[in-house]
Amino acid sequence: MNGAESLWRTAAAAGIDICFANPGTTELALVKALDDVGRIRGVLCLFEGVCSGAADGYARMSGRPAATLLHLGPGLGNAIANLHNARRARSAVLALVGDHATWHRDVDPPLASDIESLARPVSRWVRTSRSPSGVARDAAEAIAVAQSPPGGVATLIVPADCQTSETDGPLDPIAPEPPGRVGSAEIERVAAALRGARRAALYLGARALLEEGQRAAARIAAQTGCRILAETFPARLERGGGLPAIERLPYFPERAAAFLAGLELLVLAGVTEPVSFFGYPGLPSRLTPAGCVLDTLASPQDDASAALEALADALGASRTPAAAASIAAPAELSDGRLDVAGLAAVLASTLPEGVIVIDEAATSRPPWLLRSGPGPRNTLLTVPGGSIGMGPPCATGAALACPERTVVSLQGDGGALYTLQALWTQAREQLHVVTIICANRKYQVLRVELQRAGVAELGAQASALTDLSHPPVDWVSLARGLGVPAVRVETVAALHEALGRGLSEPGPLVIEWLV
Amino acid sequence: MNGAESLWRTAAAAGIDICFANPGTTELALVKALDDVGRIRGVLCLFEGVCSGAADGYARMSGRPAATLLHLGPGLGNAIANLHNARRARSAVLALVGDHATWHRDVDPPLASDIESLARPVSRWVRTSRSPSGVARDAAEAIAVAQSPPGGVATLIVPADCQTSETDGPLDPIAPEPPGRVGSAEIERVAAALRGARRAALYLGARALLEEGQRAAARIAAQTGCRILAETFPARLERGGGLPAIERLPYFPERAAAFLAGLELLVLAGVTEPVSFFGYPGLPSRLTPAGCVLDTLASPQDDASAALEALADALGASRTPAAAASIAAPAELSDGRLDVAGLAAVLASTLPEGVIVIDEAATSRPPWLLRSGPGPRNTLLTVPGGSIGMGPPCATGAALACPERTVVSLQGDGGALYTLQALWTQAREQLHVVTIICANRKYQVLRVELQRAGVAELGAQASALTDLSHPPVDWVSLARGLGVPAVRVETVAALHEALGRGLSEPGPLVIEWLV
Repeated sequence: MNGAESLWRTAAAAGIDICFANPGTTELALVKALDDVGRIRGVLCLFEGVCSGAADGYARMSGRPAATLLHLGPGLGNAIANLHNARRARSAVLALVGDHATWHRDVDPPLASDIESLARPVSRWVRTSRSPSGVARDAAEAIAVAQSPPGGVATLIVPADCQTSETDGPLDPIAPEPPGRVGSAEIERVAAALRGARRAALYLGARALLEEGQRAAARIAAQTGCRILAETFPARLERGGGLPAIERLPYFPERAAAFLAGLELLVLAGVTEPVSFFGYPGLPSRLTPAGCVLDTLASPQDDASAALEALADALGASRTPAAAASIAAPAELSDGRLDVAGLAAVLASTLPEGVIVIDEAATSRPPWLLRSGPGPRNTLLTVPGGSIGMGPPCATGAALACPERTVVSLQGDGGALYTLQALWTQAREQLHVVTIICANRKYQVLRVELQRAGVAELGAQASALTDLSHPPVDWVSLARGLGVPAVRVETVAALHEALGRGLSEPGPLVIEWLV
Repeated sequence: MNGAESLWRTAAAAGIDICFANPGTTELALVKALDDVGRIRGVLCLFEGVCSGAADGYARMSGRPAATLLHLGPGLGNAIANLHNARRARSAVLALVGDHATWHRDVDPPLASDIESLARPVSRWVRTSRSPSGVARDAAEAIAVAQSPPGGVATLIVPADCQTSETDGPLDPIAPEPPGRVGSAEIERVAAALRGARRAALYLGARALLEEGQRAAARIAAQTGCRILAETFPARLERGGGLPAIERLPYFPERAAAFLAGLELLVLAGVTEPVSFFGYPGLPSRLTPAGCVLDTLASPQDDASAALEALADALGASRTPAAAASIAAPAELSDGRLDVAGLAAVLASTLPEGVIVIDEAATSRPPWLLRSGPGPRNTLLTVPGGSIGMGPPCATGAALACPERTVVSLQGDGGALYTLQALWTQAREQLHVVTIICANRKYQVLRVELQRAGVAELGAQASALTDLSHPPVDWVSLARGLGVPAVRVETVAALHEALGRGLSEPGPLVIEWLV
């Protein structure tokens, strides 16, 4: 058995069942071994940023690690932006990168570069295999590290000769570290603080936002009257279906400050302190209000759900479920031209139980996305690392992880242009993904930021460098060119009809909304 | 004057007149300052790999440094693949990357990462500005390093507060290092070796392939009977119009070995020894035949053209031009379905004097590209770093550098899919670029490599992971979606007609050839 086969057999035993691949010559032994091993599904992506974003989406939705297969330094380079998002989402990703044969690197061939230096900024673990017999061990370690709390990217670089040479075979999986357990003294401390604070909030992130953590948070809120807040860009947020109302922290620091104003106590669960996305002159980086005590119940490494449950018990909170939020009646659909309110109304009235929603809508984001609340159960995935171009790949991976669910991707046009190649993989794999491209034909967020910076009137260059209207991008043509049916909508009724069709028919659909 | 303005004024004084930009919030002061300074043209690209590939193409064709403007680590990540090509092409590129304000980085906001670690593998110089007053000095140094022989990428990371704060103003340019001068002793040594060798070749790379170097090489060949060879993937190769016949070193090592077999002396000018692109078991990395003496006339840092001229003089070569290759009669155009031979014939009979040809045709590459020879003068740009997805951006930059010339880009479909967003910039800037997409709808080179590795029959996964036909990519739709007119051709006559139209009409055109 060669190194490539030993790697995949080790990975399969450790729970990896998918590999998002854009291979080159130095990865071909790994490609061939996929056929020999037969337990891992290779999914072709036409750009490496699709591989990494899809692996992130798959890991978030499946709870299992996902692999990518990338070609040398440049292939890894193309994957960096979405590996950065995966890192911030704390998704368990095994980034496999082929390299030149060990004996060939000395001559500095054209594609050679320092792959480890590229990998480190997005990886919690980086290694280059040194021998064929080490590949299985390296893979087992990488997968264990990727899954160990809080989770992240492990990059394993495998020289071509380590893939093709004979080995002793695969290895058993290495168990990931368990999550940290929050001790009873800490629980009691936080319980006492919550009892003593008049205006308190729970600030939830990462795994605290899964169902268990939310239900425990709801018990605490019912008992103490505290608010329940979520980080601005959660990796995965379960919503609706009786889960508590949770507000996402606003993006701009002055709005976040207003949102948090008056709090005496902010209890962190599965998350670190709230900070501003960007730094603005005269505004603070740290968003916790002056005089508000920060108390960490559970770090991202800890079992935040268990800690929240223990805290609820320590507070004597009722074990009966908090009153479920009522299922709101579908909003009345207005007639006429589509706007953000109309989009929100169509979504609220149309999206089915169990839908997975991807939020990369940027400045076209409907308020419906910012506040959990009534409505059927759904799962929201956002962009924790802030690198746009995550949406189409993440939707692809989420759909592969959950073939029985539907994915609706709310996508700004600027962001979608980084990774439109994901549509082809959605077509090839016939994934049930409906992408709503919110096409305002500009980098609107940059125009807002220029205004905030005091630029009252855009100069010619600032205008051109934030404008996508000249020439207009035609998303219907682009989607069809990549094998995905597409339709353009301009009215509420047209969106309602198109979305309904996309939800009821199999396979992907792109809906272009001219904002 | 703030740091951003001091940077652009310094860059303009140092010869930078263009910036390929995909900015974000942390680069907005630099965007605004483009309007204030007015001497540098900002060109918007919708993906950062377009920025870096266009800067490479611009630098290769203009001989001046070109700038990119990228957003933090993920933006730089997207630019890495084509910065790798620029590094191997030794193109003078100033890669500007915005960063968080220095006082904001401590809180580890979502978009923060180790930008320098990402930059190092593709850069010969990396620095993060530490103060507003240092920005102009940093820019001057970066531009000097980028231009100093043999040329390369200098990455300057500029925190947002260093852009917005007040400074003392711009600085004068710093002169780049001069190229190395090859001494007369070395010239005499190589002349003696050439006189004593029966079977010798000049192996030219980098700036030795510009017109002066080639004319000197032709004098040497006429005097000594030596062959003139070029590296496999030259950054820029002048061809035709009386320049000597030069053969590019074949790609596969066994063909390269046959090509070099029997040589007693290989003289290197502007290039290092020939090595195999990939390592194959049983085949050598170093391609110089056993018993053949390698003699370095000029390294890539040296003035290779001057050294070749001095060598020609030392050999007593005639100063009258070597007999110019005759202008071949246009090939007879066959009728019927288009194939590689038909493509070559159409190109030979249609391309005008002065055309710039981009070669990323991969397995559809016509032999016409591999051998300089008769025909009108043209300039060939290839992929020195081997990272595909260079073609569309490089064509974009070349067209901006040479508005009076036409660019014809021969492009594999797999490669084009990495950076198709470049078509939009071609449409926006109304660049005269005709792209011929050679759409074989597979990663054919990988299938060839699998065969070479002994895989007689592709398994289901190896087949799927090298197949682009399901669903078929429709390049006519994709191009139109990005604002570029497009046509599909299947016959020699249709290509001839379409290419003729593309050459005679302004603006870009895409021709999809179903291989």
